[in-house]
Amino acid sequence: MFSKVLIANRGEIALRVLRACKELGIQTVAIHSTADAEAMHVKLADESVCIGPPSARDSYLNIPQILAACEITGADAVHPGYGFLSENARFAQILEEHKISFIGPSAEHIRIMGDKIAAKQTAKRLGIPVVPGSEGGVDSAEDAKRVAAEMGYPVLIKAASGGGGKGMQVVHSEDKMELAFTTARSEAAANFGDSTVYVEKYLEKPRHIEVQVMGDGKGHAIHLGERDCSLQRRHQKVWEEAQSPALNSEQQNRIGDICAKAMQGLGYSGAGTIEFLYENGEFYFIEMNTRLQVEHPVTESITRIDLVNEQLKVACGAGLDIRQEDIKFQGHAIECRINAENPETFVPSPGKITYYHPPGGLGVRVDSGVYQGYSIPPYYDSLIGKLIVTGRNRVECMMRLRRALDEFVVDGIQTTLPLFRDLVDNADIANGAYDIHWLEKYLASK
Amino acid sequence: MFSKVLIANRGEIALRVLRACKELGIQTVAIHSTADAEAMHVKLADESVCIGPPSARDSYLNIPQILAACEITGADAVHPGYGFLSENARFAQILEEHKISFIGPSAEHIRIMGDKIAAKQTAKRLGIPVVPGSEGGVDSAEDAKRVAAEMGYPVLIKAASGGGGKGMQVVHSEDKMELAFTTARSEAAANFGDSTVYVEKYLEKPRHIEVQVMGDGKGHAIHLGERDCSLQRRHQKVWEEAQSPALNSEQQNRIGDICAKAMQGLGYSGAGTIEFLYENGEFYFIEMNTRLQVEHPVTESITRIDLVNEQLKVACGAGLDIRQEDIKFQGHAIECRINAENPETFVPSPGKITYYHPPGGLGVRVDSGVYQGYSIPPYYDSLIGKLIVTGRNRVECMMRLRRALDEFVVDGIQTTLPLFRDLVDNADIANGAYDIHWLEKYLASK
Repeated sequence: MFSKVLIANRGEIALRVLRACKELGIQTVAIHSTADAEAMHVKLADESVCIGPPSARDSYLNIPQILAACEITGADAVHPGYGFLSENARFAQILEEHKISFIGPSAEHIRIMGDKIAAKQTAKRLGIPVVPGSEGGVDSAEDAKRVAAEMGYPVLIKAASGGGGKGMQVVHSEDKMELAFTTARSEAAANFGDSTVYVEKYLEKPRHIEVQVMGDGKGHAIHLGERDCSLQRRHQKVWEEAQSPALNSEQQNRIGDICAKAMQGLGYSGAGTIEFLYENGEFYFIEMNTRLQVEHPVTESITRIDLVNEQLKVACGAGLDIRQEDIKFQGHAIECRINAENPETFVPSPGKITYYHPPGGLGVRVDSGVYQGYSIPPYYDSLIGKLIVTGRNRVECMMRLRRALDEFVVDGIQTTLPLFRDLVDNADIANGAYDIHWLEKYLASK
Repeated sequence: MFSKVLIANRGEIALRVLRACKELGIQTVAIHSTADAEAMHVKLADESVCIGPPSARDSYLNIPQILAACEITGADAVHPGYGFLSENARFAQILEEHKISFIGPSAEHIRIMGDKIAAKQTAKRLGIPVVPGSEGGVDSAEDAKRVAAEMGYPVLIKAASGGGGKGMQVVHSEDKMELAFTTARSEAAANFGDSTVYVEKYLEKPRHIEVQVMGDGKGHAIHLGERDCSLQRRHQKVWEEAQSPALNSEQQNRIGDICAKAMQGLGYSGAGTIEFLYENGEFYFIEMNTRLQVEHPVTESITRIDLVNEQLKVACGAGLDIRQEDIKFQGHAIECRINAENPETFVPSPGKITYYHPPGGLGVRVDSGVYQGYSIPPYYDSLIGKLIVTGRNRVECMMRLRRALDEFVVDGIQTTLPLFRDLVDNADIANGAYDIHWLEKYLASK
């Protein structure tokens, strides 16, 4: 096992990684900007190094400084957390060249999955379902009809050179194709000087479903089930759950198996997440995140597997000793991302926490790097903690979440706790009847 | 289900019960003495009633006042927690007479198990192993030898009218019997005016093992595995774990099945605990507690069953829908009882908590009724919270406990947290090699 791990992150995820290291008897090094000297992970780490001013570019993204911190402290591995340098292939490669382990996949896999086109091609090659489309321009309404008939309506006609919704037409049935095709082509020509259009499957009310995977880098890979992260605001996840209320077990097993097999084929190493849009029983690949996700605890709750512990074991070469058949999905878990924000306008609300009391009791987990008296700096993401609640089933989980939210006290700043207190009482949420547009609509209607 | 439950207790257990009620959508009534007006369970309850002055006799043990609180608030059930009136058969009966449900077993079962002799007789009749003995006086050293040979050495010769260790002789082998018998008889005669002595199996280094049971009152009963509560100081449990590090699965299943069958035979209703001394593969009944135990969370952690939820369901007549074969014991859990006490002298340390920060993260549960700014009154038990940690196995659990203890901050009063920080690093504890005398010896040697 590693003897000393440098945690190249801040906030709750730095603390999360630190806890896993401590539980494996590994020494920890915290790095921090001048704005984060009082952060909890800094206080709890065995050593800490200040690596620069508040600006992330000069601190948490500053590769030479982080490398220097590794050398000063003798760290033999770096855990990047999420965000910052966690999906930076160059960082992974530089560490490798300095004989420091990067706790994550290979630089090559980070690079492939970081490139949208390469990622989609790779996914397709590995047997992961992608959004069906014409794979190139279609020349006539008749061609468009033929492609649409194959994949089923509704379809989207998109300008090949386009963007921003221009030259885009949703077509719900064959008799609307002629007009839509002509309109899209002329809009494309007018806006982009290129009338080429292509046809793609259109998803009306998709859910965001993602599959957690782990690989040992030598061809053994497993999936740890899916998470439903459809409740989003401006493409930021707000509420995540496992298992998805929308999937039956056949669908769960099918997509899980596809992802595990794909990672076996890729020889993937460490933790990763394959993200999909889901509609009417079908999954459509969006992207793969080659790192730990914010919402990983809901998977830990229903599998009882410590994902950071497994990441550390895989990265140090101890392998992945979990077989697919060992994983049992039990109960239901929901995570709420508590942000230091006005719960109506979502304007960040940094400042001093004058009172802090997290909820406790059965089935309640709080992952947070804040404490009473701590001042949230204005420079970074506004996530201040995650409330993760587990129950034997979704109903119990929701009831427990409601009571945990009632107990949670954060004073001195504004937080998104009131939003979750609303959501937990909403009938659509109670029924699991929501898609990726639901939250935006709900917020607009309030 | 009940519509309103009155919680006839205080502190962490009042909060524990309140949480379970909230999660079932049941209204809650807190009762409190004048010393507990600021307690967390009072703040979180839907209603609260002050029932008297600090003295427990005049408040938490004051049956007429509690009955009046039920009538004022219209509560249809009372949860007694542990301690106070939880094993008071008269209280259960009075409630019954007033058509208020007592969340616990029948008054009759409380009465039987509250009487040491009746409890032992009942246990024996139900097939529960008890400490073997001569069942009455032995008249000669020859008789004593015969009895001892049957049960095996060492044995204890005890004065029938005795107490306090007088007239008590431990005999390790037959050749020591003559002298020990004569000595015990003369001591008994001299001290109690009655020379009658009896012979009982002597346990040198027993462990305290207890089995959690639940019954529906109609003959369906299950066990939820055992807890090892051998780490005690002055007969007070300090550290409890499930599963026991001393038992193999054959022993676990055997004693569990015996207890479940006994409860089926008794027609027991609700939660209960059957306590044993354990040595060399054998279990010896001590007593049965007809209520929830302080240490119930370790069982919840390894079974994922909410015991208070089940108590409420059984008490309202909804039955017990868990079958024995549904229960899977997974992982390992340890509970530390955090007391407001000097960690060396164990002198109570009431007063104001000036800073409070509980640990969080994966596998960590904190059950506590305190908060920053709360003043612990000097009138009651010094338990201020329970730290319950769960891991996939005992090693992981211990490592996680260590890091959770490191994170736990309680300022302004003294607590027993430092004792646990010592224990978690002790080799005997790490090996699970301790008996009921271990902690006293350890503390004496410090």
